[in-house]
Amino acid sequence: MVQRILILGGGFAGLFAAREVKKRLGDNAEVELISEENYFVFQPLLPEVAAGSITAPHAVTPLRALLKGVFVRKARVHSVDVERQIVTVFQGVQRRPTEVSYDHLVVAMGQVVDLSRVPGLADHALTMKHLEDARRLRNHVIEKLEHAEITSLPEVKREALTFTVVGAGFSGVETVGEMKELIDRSLKFYPNVSPEEVRVVVVEFADRVLGELPESLGRYARRRLEERGIEIMLGKGVASATGTLLTLSDGTEIPTRTIVATIGNAPSPVVRDMPLEQQAGKIVVERSLNAKGRDNIWSIGDCALIPMKEGAEARDDFAPPTAQFAVREARCLAANIAASVAGNPLKPFVYKSQGALASLGARRGVAEVWGMKISGFPAWLLWRAYYVGFLPGFSTKVRVLLNWMMDALSARSVVQLKGAEPPVSRYVHYKAGDRIYEAGNRADGVYSIVSGAVELRQGDGNGEETVLRLGKGDHFGDGILVGENLRRSTVRALEDTKVLLLDRETYLQMVDAFPVLKDYFNEHLRKTFGVEPMPGKRAS
Amino acid sequence: MVQRILILGGGFAGLFAAREVKKRLGDNAEVELISEENYFVFQPLLPEVAAGSITAPHAVTPLRALLKGVFVRKARVHSVDVERQIVTVFQGVQRRPTEVSYDHLVVAMGQVVDLSRVPGLADHALTMKHLEDARRLRNHVIEKLEHAEITSLPEVKREALTFTVVGAGFSGVETVGEMKELIDRSLKFYPNVSPEEVRVVVVEFADRVLGELPESLGRYARRRLEERGIEIMLGKGVASATGTLLTLSDGTEIPTRTIVATIGNAPSPVVRDMPLEQQAGKIVVERSLNAKGRDNIWSIGDCALIPMKEGAEARDDFAPPTAQFAVREARCLAANIAASVAGNPLKPFVYKSQGALASLGARRGVAEVWGMKISGFPAWLLWRAYYVGFLPGFSTKVRVLLNWMMDALSARSVVQLKGAEPPVSRYVHYKAGDRIYEAGNRADGVYSIVSGAVELRQGDGNGEETVLRLGKGDHFGDGILVGENLRRSTVRALEDTKVLLLDRETYLQMVDAFPVLKDYFNEHLRKTFGVEPMPGKRAS
Repeated sequence: MVQRILILGGGFAGLFAAREVKKRLGDNAEVELISEENYFVFQPLLPEVAAGSITAPHAVTPLRALLKGVFVRKARVHSVDVERQIVTVFQGVQRRPTEVSYDHLVVAMGQVVDLSRVPGLADHALTMKHLEDARRLRNHVIEKLEHAEITSLPEVKREALTFTVVGAGFSGVETVGEMKELIDRSLKFYPNVSPEEVRVVVVEFADRVLGELPESLGRYARRRLEERGIEIMLGKGVASATGTLLTLSDGTEIPTRTIVATIGNAPSPVVRDMPLEQQAGKIVVERSLNAKGRDNIWSIGDCALIPMKEGAEARDDFAPPTAQFAVREARCLAANIAASVAGNPLKPFVYKSQGALASLGARRGVAEVWGMKISGFPAWLLWRAYYVGFLPGFSTKVRVLLNWMMDALSARSVVQLKGAEPPVSRYVHYKAGDRIYEAGNRADGVYSIVSGAVELRQGDGNGEETVLRLGKGDHFGDGILVGENLRRSTVRALEDTKVLLLDRETYLQMVDAFPVLKDYFNEHLRKTFGVEPMPGKRAS
Repeated sequence: MVQRILILGGGFAGLFAAREVKKRLGDNAEVELISEENYFVFQPLLPEVAAGSITAPHAVTPLRALLKGVFVRKARVHSVDVERQIVTVFQGVQRRPTEVSYDHLVVAMGQVVDLSRVPGLADHALTMKHLEDARRLRNHVIEKLEHAEITSLPEVKREALTFTVVGAGFSGVETVGEMKELIDRSLKFYPNVSPEEVRVVVVEFADRVLGELPESLGRYARRRLEERGIEIMLGKGVASATGTLLTLSDGTEIPTRTIVATIGNAPSPVVRDMPLEQQAGKIVVERSLNAKGRDNIWSIGDCALIPMKEGAEARDDFAPPTAQFAVREARCLAANIAASVAGNPLKPFVYKSQGALASLGARRGVAEVWGMKISGFPAWLLWRAYYVGFLPGFSTKVRVLLNWMMDALSARSVVQLKGAEPPVSRYVHYKAGDRIYEAGNRADGVYSIVSGAVELRQGDGNGEETVLRLGKGDHFGDGILVGENLRRSTVRALEDTKVLLLDRETYLQMVDAFPVLKDYFNEHLRKTFGVEPMPGKRAS
C-alpha cells in the first residue's frame, strides 16, 4: 500500500528527510513537503548575504528544483489533528483552509526567534533567521552610513555609527565579522565618516565567544575580532532596547541605532500547540526519532530533543542543532520509516560530530575537524569549501562561487535597496527623557501611548506655551489630520514609554474610512488646540 | 568663484549631468547630486530583473561609486525656493528638514507613474518604474504559479494563470516578452499547470505595438510575440481594475490576478509645484536647456520639454524621453553652464537619434540603427551589447554579463523571495456580485466601505440567517476583535465597491492602542451580532 509521508518544514532537516524518504521508499510512498517559503536557504550563508558578498537570490535554491518526485506545497501550517491524521494549512494567498492527510508525519519545523523577554528588543532588534533578515540588515547598515554621512548632529552620527550584535555564538560571531567587513570596505564611499567614528560591539552573556568550539579556538576568534576593532563584551545580558539605545544587564548604555539579536530561539507556535510531549521547547523523541508514544509521528532537526544515549539528561547527551546532524538524522529517519512500514524493528540514531567551523570575516576563520584545531586563512578557506560542498543543487554552488569571485574582484556595493522600511504600524520604545519629536520635524505619523507618559509642549507664536501631560490611552501627532506637515509641538518621554506609531498615510486612510475615527479626532483637535475640524471628507 | 551646482535626480540625465559638469568645471564647481535612492538603475534592464535573468543588486550601481568628486546626498526633495536659491530636503530617515543652497540648479527628476484616471488601476496594478517594481513583479508571477499549482478552484486557477500588461511601447513589450519567458521556463517545476492554461495578454490603446519604431519592425515584433503565445489586443483602453478582473474600454473582461501597467507617465509632485513654466506636465526649457525665463535653473531628461528646433510644436519637434538623448543633453548642459559662468553665449541642444532597439525576450529583438532595420537574434544580441556598453561602471558591466552567463547555463530560479506582500492597509475594489469573503475563510482583516454597498449574511447555526446591507462608512470583518479566526459570515458586493482593508495584526494593534476604537467596535459587535464585548485589554 502506498504510504503518504508528510514532511513539515523546508530547512536542512525537512529537505533531507524528503529526499531520503523518497530515495528509500520510491514508488511505495507519496512524499509531500510543506514549507512556508518555496526555497531552501542555507543559513550559514546568511551573514554573507547580509554583508553583500552574495546576493540574496543566489544564496537560495527553489525547493522544487531540489525535490524531484516530491510534491512541494507552499503553505503555512495552521494545526495538526493527530486523531484524524490531518494537517490543516493555509496555502499562499488563499483564505480557504486546506486539509492534508498523512500516514506518517515528520515534524521538522525548526525554531523561531522570540525576543519578548527583553523589553523593546522584539520591536527594535534585527534578527538573522530568514533570508529577508539578511537583506534587511544589509540595507539597514548602508542606511546608517548614508545617514552618518549627512547628519549635522553629533549624537545622531554616534548612534548611526554604532553597530551592536547580541550573542557571540556561531551566528553572532559570523554576523559581526561580516558586518565589520561590509562597513570597512564601504567607508571609502563616505568621505564624512572616518574609521575611528565607527564602533562595532558584540555582547555575550557567557564568559567566552563561540561556546560551541574548544576554548583555545574561542580565544583565537576573540583576539582576531578585537584586532579588527570589534569590541567584545562578555558576561553581560541585555536589559532593554529602544530605537537609539541598548541597555545591558549591568547598566551599561550603548547609544546605537543598530541591534542585531542572534539569541532567543523558541518553539514555533504550531509545534507548541501539537499534542506531543515537549521539553525545553522541543518535541521529545525516542532514540529512533519517533515522537514519544507515537509510532507514525517523527521529528528531527532543531525542533526535536534527540537523545544520543539511554537516559540522556545533560545538554551534551542530546543532538546539537546543526546542519551536519540534521542531514544524518534525516537518513536515520528514512530508514526507520521504511522499517516501520515493513514491520521491522527501529534503530536508534547514532552519529559523532566530525567537527565545527566558523568564519570570522576578512578571510579568517576557526575550525575543529577530527580533533584538529585550525585557525586563520586555512580555516576560512576550509569553511568556504565545506559549505559550498554542502550546498544542495549544482547551479546554486556555481552561483555562490561566482558571487564570491565577483566580490573578490570588485568593490563591495553600497547600493541600498528597499527592505529596511519600518512597518506602517509599529511599537516604539523610549527611555525617560527621550525626545520623541520636536517642533519643525516632519510630521510622519500619529502616536498612541501604550504605557508610560509623555510631555507635549506647543507654543502659540506669542510666547505662550501649552504644556500637556499625556498617559496611557492618550495620543499625539494627530495634527496631521488638519494638514500639519511639520510638527508644531515638541514631545518628550517623561517615563519609559511604549507607543504605537501609525504612519501618516495609513492614519489618513484610516480616518477617512472609519467615520468614528474622523469624528473623534476632529473633536479631539478642536478641544485640545482649538483647531477647527475638517470641513468635509478627504477625497479618496 | 567656486559655483555650487546642484543636480536633482539620479537617473541617466542627473548622473551624466553631474559627471559632465564636474569634468568641465573641475575645481571651479562644487557639484552635488540629490537622489532618493543611493544607486543608479538602468531602466531598460528592469524587465530582465523582473524575469530573473539578472538579480536586482547586480543590475544597479551605487551612485557614490560612479560619481567621484561629486557630493551625493540621499534625500527626498521637499520644495525649491527660487528666490533664496535653496532646496529643502528630508534626508533618509531624518525628520528635520535640511536646506541646500545652489548657484545653478539642474532639475532632472524624470517622471512618476500616475494611474489614478482608471478606477482601481492604481490599487491593483504593478508598475515597472523602479527596481523594487521589477523585484515585486518577479515574486508576484511566481506566487501566481505556486497558487495555480495547489488551488482546487478552476476560476481561481484561470485568474492566477492569466497575466496582463497594459501598454505596448518599449517597456510594455519588453516586460511581456520577459515575463512570458520566465513563465515558460518555470513551468517544469509546476506539474499541475499545463502550458495551455497560461494566458499572457498585452493591451494597447494605439493600433500597433512599439510606436517608437518603424511600422515594419512593429509588425515583426507583433508576429514574434504572437508566435510565442502572447495575445495582443490593439485599439483598446483600460476601463477599470479589481484584484481579479481587468475591464477594457470596449467592455471586454479579462479575469486576471496580474496587471502590469506601463502607462501613465506624469510629472512628480515636486516638479509640478516648482514656480517654473510647464506644459504637458513638463518643464518648458529654451533650446539651450535653461528653464524659460531663468538663467540659473536648467532641466533635462524626461521632466523637460526640450525643443529641437525654433517654433517647436509637434511631438516630433521635441527631444524624446530616452537614455540616448539624456546623455547628450547632459553634455550640452555642462557646456552651457560653463558658458553661463564665464559669461559666454549659450548654444542650442542639437542631436539626431542613432536608432532604437527593443528586446522581445526568448533571444529575439528588433532594432533600427542608422536607418537599418534589424530583427530576430542579431537584434537581440545587438540589444544586449549596446546596453552593456551603456551601463556605467566597469564592475556593473561584469556583474550583468556574469548574470547572463549563469542564466544561460542553468534553469530559471523559481525562488519566491519576499516582496509581493500587499501593504497592511490598502484599498481594494470589487465589481458588483464579487464575493469578498465567505464563511470558513481565514479572517485576515477588517473592511471599511469607502464607496458602494455590500451584503453580509450570517447563519446562527439553526437555519436562521441575518442579512445586512452595508454602505459607505460601514465596516465588516471586525469579529477578529472577539477572536474570530475563520469567518462566520459571507460578504458580497452589491454594487461596484471600494473598501479599505486593514490587516488583522494592524487592526488588533490599533484597537489596542486607541481606546475610542476599542469601545466603538465592542459596542458595534454587541449591537449587531449580540457578541459580548472583550472583558479586558489584549495583552501587548
